Amino acid sequence: MYPLDLNNFSEAVRQQLAFVIETDRLKQVLRRTHLMDGSRLENSAEHSWQIALMASILAEHAAEPVNLAHTIELLLVHDLVEIDAGDTFAFDSQGYLSKADREQAAAERIFGLLPNEQSMSLHALWEEFEAGETPEARFAVALDRLAPMLSNTLNNGGTWREHHITRAAILRRMDPIRTAIPILWPLVLQVVDDIERQGYLGATG
Amino acid sequence: MYPLDLNNFSEAVRQQLAFVIETDRLKQVLRRTHLMDGSRLENSAEHSWQIALMASILAEHAAEPVNLAHTIELLLVHDLVEIDAGDTFAFDSQGYLSKADREQAAAERIFGLLPNEQSMSLHALWEEFEAGETPEARFAVALDRLAPMLSNTLNNGGTWREHHITRAAILRRMDPIRTAIPILWPLVLQVVDDIERQGYLGATG
Repeated sequence: MYPLDLNNFSEAVRQQLAFVIETDRLKQVLRRTHLMDGSRLENSAEHSWQIALMASILAEHAAEPVNLAHTIELLLVHDLVEIDAGDTFAFDSQGYLSKADREQAAAERIFGLLPNEQSMSLHALWEEFEAGETPEARFAVALDRLAPMLSNTLNNGGTWREHHITRAAILRRMDPIRTAIPILWPLVLQVVDDIERQGYLGATG
Repeated sequence: MYPLDLNNFSEAVRQQLAFVIETDRLKQVLRRTHLMDGSRLENSAEHSWQIALMASILAEHAAEPVNLAHTIELLLVHDLVEIDAGDTFAFDSQGYLSKADREQAAAERIFGLLPNEQSMSLHALWEEFEAGETPEARFAVALDRLAPMLSNTLNNGGTWREHHITRAAILRRMDPIRTAIPILWPLVLQVVDDIERQGYLGATG
């Protein structure tokens, strides 16, 4: 498969390197979100880096005490399933119908490349992020909402404008910010007000 | 500066959001390294994500006990100075003459966007990575060498071949792997042997 002869290495090392090589593909999964300067679409690998770094910058504003290291682990892993399942656009209700199944299969294949204990550990991190029921997962999910909100703000409405998203749908999507980083909720409201006032949002219907 | 009115927020929040927005530019700093499938050059943001994740996968092979969370923090921050200073190619001896000065100025500006305490903390992380004198920094630097080695291996010599790098220069550059992840040093030697045998390296001179 690769021009890498790993026969002299333990099974664990072979599995770990195969996994590392597989992770490279996340750099080619494009999101709908634009870079903040609008120059191109963002990929899920660079997005994961940015929100992991944001976790350390904004941790003091988390509504509940969070273990920062654990939050960062959640964020480094949270999008890996997209290597197989692709990025499902936040407002694609059709895509969301099959998202859970597609991502569960992807998690089994991708985390399954690792030695068993690590495979279970990464799978559990991904499940925890998806469930959003621990303080760290709630904070992580809020950061995953905050980054595209900043991009859309800096891009005249960005994906919200392009896809005619309604104010109500945006506020539902951003709600994790209200609960997990409440100090930034007024910013969400202000940004959505501004963009709505410019006529860039979809009609409520 | 941005279509973001932050007047109702604290100075700290304003500084933190300005920093977060600034970090977006790392996604546009291109390295010489190719993606592992050769399709395009890699950027420093997605590279930072990958080696942070590699730290958690390969931590058990670190030569010394390392604090994984601290290693990951080093890796998330280590390339931010490239927003101003650009990526200096590993084998560009001319570029390396000015690298320290350019990056020091960049660190002061970029980390200086943050509130004072965070600014000092991120600056210290970057300095620690650059100095490579703690167990976490040694492991982090080795991971920063391992990722492009995998890419070059999967791309018929990649940057080593394109820039006629000699075996001796490669082994010097890879030496942090020998000391910090010794279990993988035989892989480095094997890969360099293979690529040299194919005639892809520069002549020793």
